[in-house]
Amino acid sequence: MAQNTALPRNETGIETAIGILRQRFADRLQTGQSIREQHGHTTTWIENQAPDAVVFPDTTQDVSEIVSICAAHNAPIIPFGTGTSLEGHVNAPAGGVSLDLSRMNRVLAVNPDDLDCVVQPGVTREDLNTHLRDQGLFFPIDPGANASLGGMAATRASGTNAVRYGTMKDNVLSLEAVMPDGQIIRTGHRAKKSSAGYDLTRLLVGAEGTLGVITELTLRLHGIPESITSARCSFPSVDAACRAVMMTIQYGIPVARIELLDELSVRAANAYSGLSLPETPLLLLEFHGSDTGAAEQAETFGQIAEDFGGSDFAATSTMEERNKLWQARHDMYWACLQLRPGAQGISTDVCVPISRLAECVTQAQAKSAEIGLVAPIVGHVGDGNFHTLLLIDRNSPQEVARAEAFVGWLNDLAISMDGTCTGEHGIGQGKRTYLAKELGSATTYMAAIKAALDPQNIMNPGKIF
Amino acid sequence: MAQNTALPRNETGIETAIGILRQRFADRLQTGQSIREQHGHTTTWIENQAPDAVVFPDTTQDVSEIVSICAAHNAPIIPFGTGTSLEGHVNAPAGGVSLDLSRMNRVLAVNPDDLDCVVQPGVTREDLNTHLRDQGLFFPIDPGANASLGGMAATRASGTNAVRYGTMKDNVLSLEAVMPDGQIIRTGHRAKKSSAGYDLTRLLVGAEGTLGVITELTLRLHGIPESITSARCSFPSVDAACRAVMMTIQYGIPVARIELLDELSVRAANAYSGLSLPETPLLLLEFHGSDTGAAEQAETFGQIAEDFGGSDFAATSTMEERNKLWQARHDMYWACLQLRPGAQGISTDVCVPISRLAECVTQAQAKSAEIGLVAPIVGHVGDGNFHTLLLIDRNSPQEVARAEAFVGWLNDLAISMDGTCTGEHGIGQGKRTYLAKELGSATTYMAAIKAALDPQNIMNPGKIF
Repeated sequence: MAQNTALPRNETGIETAIGILRQRFADRLQTGQSIREQHGHTTTWIENQAPDAVVFPDTTQDVSEIVSICAAHNAPIIPFGTGTSLEGHVNAPAGGVSLDLSRMNRVLAVNPDDLDCVVQPGVTREDLNTHLRDQGLFFPIDPGANASLGGMAATRASGTNAVRYGTMKDNVLSLEAVMPDGQIIRTGHRAKKSSAGYDLTRLLVGAEGTLGVITELTLRLHGIPESITSARCSFPSVDAACRAVMMTIQYGIPVARIELLDELSVRAANAYSGLSLPETPLLLLEFHGSDTGAAEQAETFGQIAEDFGGSDFAATSTMEERNKLWQARHDMYWACLQLRPGAQGISTDVCVPISRLAECVTQAQAKSAEIGLVAPIVGHVGDGNFHTLLLIDRNSPQEVARAEAFVGWLNDLAISMDGTCTGEHGIGQGKRTYLAKELGSATTYMAAIKAALDPQNIMNPGKIF
Repeated sequence: MAQNTALPRNETGIETAIGILRQRFADRLQTGQSIREQHGHTTTWIENQAPDAVVFPDTTQDVSEIVSICAAHNAPIIPFGTGTSLEGHVNAPAGGVSLDLSRMNRVLAVNPDDLDCVVQPGVTREDLNTHLRDQGLFFPIDPGANASLGGMAATRASGTNAVRYGTMKDNVLSLEAVMPDGQIIRTGHRAKKSSAGYDLTRLLVGAEGTLGVITELTLRLHGIPESITSARCSFPSVDAACRAVMMTIQYGIPVARIELLDELSVRAANAYSGLSLPETPLLLLEFHGSDTGAAEQAETFGQIAEDFGGSDFAATSTMEERNKLWQARHDMYWACLQLRPGAQGISTDVCVPISRLAECVTQAQAKSAEIGLVAPIVGHVGDGNFHTLLLIDRNSPQEVARAEAFVGWLNDLAISMDGTCTGEHGIGQGKRTYLAKELGSATTYMAAIKAALDPQNIMNPGKIF
């Protein structure tokens, strides 16, 4: 596919850099085919482009050395967290070294008085939350996969809780990073806000490793709410469900999660998770607050839902029922794959203003039906963000072409609605053409920043641009 | 003073650019001394450096033309909103043209369904809120002054509501801007979140006009809460008040405002606003929510306050009493000036992790007493941010030197506490040396970005760097 066109390789530089790295890092440098391929991609649908070596730093100083060595020999560096990104972010189209941060997995400090913590980039979100639980704290960003926090920052991840708690951009207070010349910088400290100079924190968040390697994150934490209430409600149409969402947000209900499953997704969840939900569009919700606060939120939502034809509304605050509901939501990818056994999934995401959401989802459903694609939709609809999972036979060039045409059509539609070609997956290799469509000449200035900070283009080349 | 060292002037280029601009803009270009001086500074304490001319664009196209003309002749451009910034942001140390955006003051769109709006940069926050009131919406950021929204974005402003609603960085969805080469870009659209490329929105927010001119803002709005409750509570010490704040935040009470006035500030408020508050540290608070929600928040805070020796706790939801309380808070600058009639005020701000706040405020009080400065303190303490107003005789070089020494000492202290040299005032001319102390080599990369986007250094030169 065109998305991952190979780039010119600097054979001599890569070979020299790997030679030096091997001397320095011994068996923390690996060149076996399977580990290289595993680091080229994991959950992405874009064809694998394996790096030439994988190196495992233990410290920021190690990262700085690796980057300095690669910079001296003009060899590409591809930062790697858990490989759960979706747009080919960890492919190596120009070869080079995958920098696997999984050994940098320590929680360095938790400051309960300040509701913040300092972690290494290889800590996963589940590990962090396990670490925090005893202190009554949690880190809210949940993109589904048990991704590393460094990777989540690099891709500006968000997920189900973003409607209340924001995305990674809102929950990273500051970063330590190794820049493309090997220098170690701090973008800020632990103050809750600052007007001190350019916002390098937010520049590195979402830069997909193209401007530097994140080596430490200072994150905002939240107290585990006194009460958590989950709810579900079925609707006669996607339109009705989306209108209920819009009204919920307008009412200022501080809903913690509000997720849409379309008819097809509900059918998949019923089959896979042994549920018996009405096979019409469904909203899954979660409310955080005091006992009375969370109950009041759920009750107000129930009233709104009724106005839009919602039925079968059920709220629960028992942990068992909550977990069952959200486990089904988390299993949606696997559940949907069963809608067409043997098929492979292409997950694509867009995000639009919430007033256009119903129209966008409905048109996407009609389009996939029209071109004969099985394409269930789930979405973080409080933000206007949804995912279409295209179930295709990767061995059929016709199906692949139809899927690519659908992705292009959907991205153009979202952009035409004042939306974005990606709410949370990032650009990587897969969405480069849509980025240019969406932001036009602004990308010139992104490229100028890239050229200024990484003049050799060694940091994750072939991504974003 | 050293902060505003004059820079080399490009006399020929400035003269040529002004000549062309005069032909093009006729009486929308002004060169009278008083209007030039007024545009050099207003509320800052740094000495005036007037621009050579002031130009008043009506449209983005005008701005693009002005910037193109200045770029062609290497003449500085200083974007100007309302001139309410505090660190010499609108001074013209290399001369050039002040670009006054006050005529670009239209609200272009309000989208109640999406809780967003699109405004020109000269719209002030009070104008916007007046415009929105009938629709039950408001824009929460309140830095005190009735600043322009373009200026608030450029300085990453925040203020009393930031503890709940965030700062400008959190409430700007996207921007239109004219870049230093005259090109017009859009940094994003109206989706609530996006992972599409580098975050140019957050790069321009806080760049203080050094990377481009903001010509349009898409802003996040909020519904006016069903219920607003205000409260005040006196404490035996700054330490006790700060501990109550820390506990309030840790409890997850979504307090909308939580402001500290130290003993001296309370005395000033009593005298100026005809109040009779106990002259001990005071917290002023505001709670937003449903009727029961806001009341519950106030009640929970009351219990916390009691644990820390709080007394004289009074909550009210009548608008008259609320307005009286917050009017007194807004008048603090003028009230404090009366503590030493004839003195001039130097307002400086720092921000520290909330666990260090009590210590930082207490040390600041002791230091100002030690060196004989009258220096009342007020703060947005939910964020760990506070302001010291130094009341000095500007004609006394000794007093000025003592004030400068105090500012330096306080900034060093905040930085040593993992904090920042400015929570919300920005760097401008006044804090450049502290930025370097705070962020070290990270400023090298800021300078590289500046050089890449503005190679001639025509956009607000002499600020930040």
